[in-house]
Amino acid sequence: MLNQGAKPRRGRPVTTDPNTVSLAALKLFAERGIETVTMDEVAVVAGISRSNLFRIFPSKAAVVWGGVHQFQEELERRLSDSESSDLISLLHSSWVGAMDGLDETLETLRLRLKLIGSSPEVYGWGQGQLDQVRQVIEASVVKNGGDTLRAKTVSAAIVSASMAIMIHWAQSDDPRTPSQILDEGFQDFEALFLKN
Amino acid sequence: MLNQGAKPRRGRPVTTDPNTVSLAALKLFAERGIETVTMDEVAVVAGISRSNLFRIFPSKAAVVWGGVHQFQEELERRLSDSESSDLISLLHSSWVGAMDGLDETLETLRLRLKLIGSSPEVYGWGQGQLDQVRQVIEASVVKNGGDTLRAKTVSAAIVSASMAIMIHWAQSDDPRTPSQILDEGFQDFEALFLKN
Repeated sequence: MLNQGAKPRRGRPVTTDPNTVSLAALKLFAERGIETVTMDEVAVVAGISRSNLFRIFPSKAAVVWGGVHQFQEELERRLSDSESSDLISLLHSSWVGAMDGLDETLETLRLRLKLIGSSPEVYGWGQGQLDQVRQVIEASVVKNGGDTLRAKTVSAAIVSASMAIMIHWAQSDDPRTPSQILDEGFQDFEALFLKN
Repeated sequence: MLNQGAKPRRGRPVTTDPNTVSLAALKLFAERGIETVTMDEVAVVAGISRSNLFRIFPSKAAVVWGGVHQFQEELERRLSDSESSDLISLLHSSWVGAMDGLDETLETLRLRLKLIGSSPEVYGWGQGQLDQVRQVIEASVVKNGGDTLRAKTVSAAIVSASMAIMIHWAQSDDPRTPSQILDEGFQDFEALFLKN
């Protein structure tokens, strides 16, 4: 526990690193079971005030699903910057690149994904954020000449396949990085369609 | 309303057609909003007793997500009966065939899928059933030489892409049948990988 026994400091702003808070919270969720942990307990192990915690993370869902927004912005930037006549290559490289650029330790990411994979409820907490990622993909498919049906099909497939790959990575303690396993998982998937 | 004002019949078993009950319930959900309708109200519009309703459908989720179990069994049968050296063709034809064999009117299926597509919560009610479909696909991928990662990737992609295609079909009032739109949606998806 950080700051255990320390008196609350007054008179200067507390700077709080969201990555440090996330890691402390995720460890506690993994140890005790996410359902039984309260946000008050998270504040205690993270060594910050309750109001400071809620300022960074308004809910347990926000702690667990943190990082998706950064991924989404990076994915959007890569999709609009890149030129490719081949939609699959464009999505593949942009997705893996966005994952590679994520500002997060492997330990934190693994803890997140283990929790997400451990319960349909915790997975469900991320639906809103995954929808936003799907919308970024849909926009790119349409921009590259696809209709609505193709946009919905491709975005659903890539988001769900990626989540399956990442959760498998976290649960299996695979030594590769997330971007490596995504890259190889996508390659394997793409090769299945070339065997016709 | 069926049987309105009729006296309860005694002394002989009531035979209840689940398809008739589903349609009455789905129409009520669509009209009034699924959250506000109670199972008691479903029993009234379906013209059956509460206990008879709960015997067929233990919950609103069971009403909305009915038919998945039949689809899953048909899919499993087709995957084990069919011979194919090409995994994608095998999954494509088995999936479309299982959908084609579904004992359900288009009106009922459209109402179901509109409800499922209208709220993440109602979609979430089907996770357990979709997991079972994913497991059928995973088993087939492994039987055809794939590893766990490929099994998880392919099953996640096909289930999510299909749900996206079907919900789009229901929401757009597309004149094709669900098996036609799935067939054409899969073909379009597969063609994207051949452009490399």
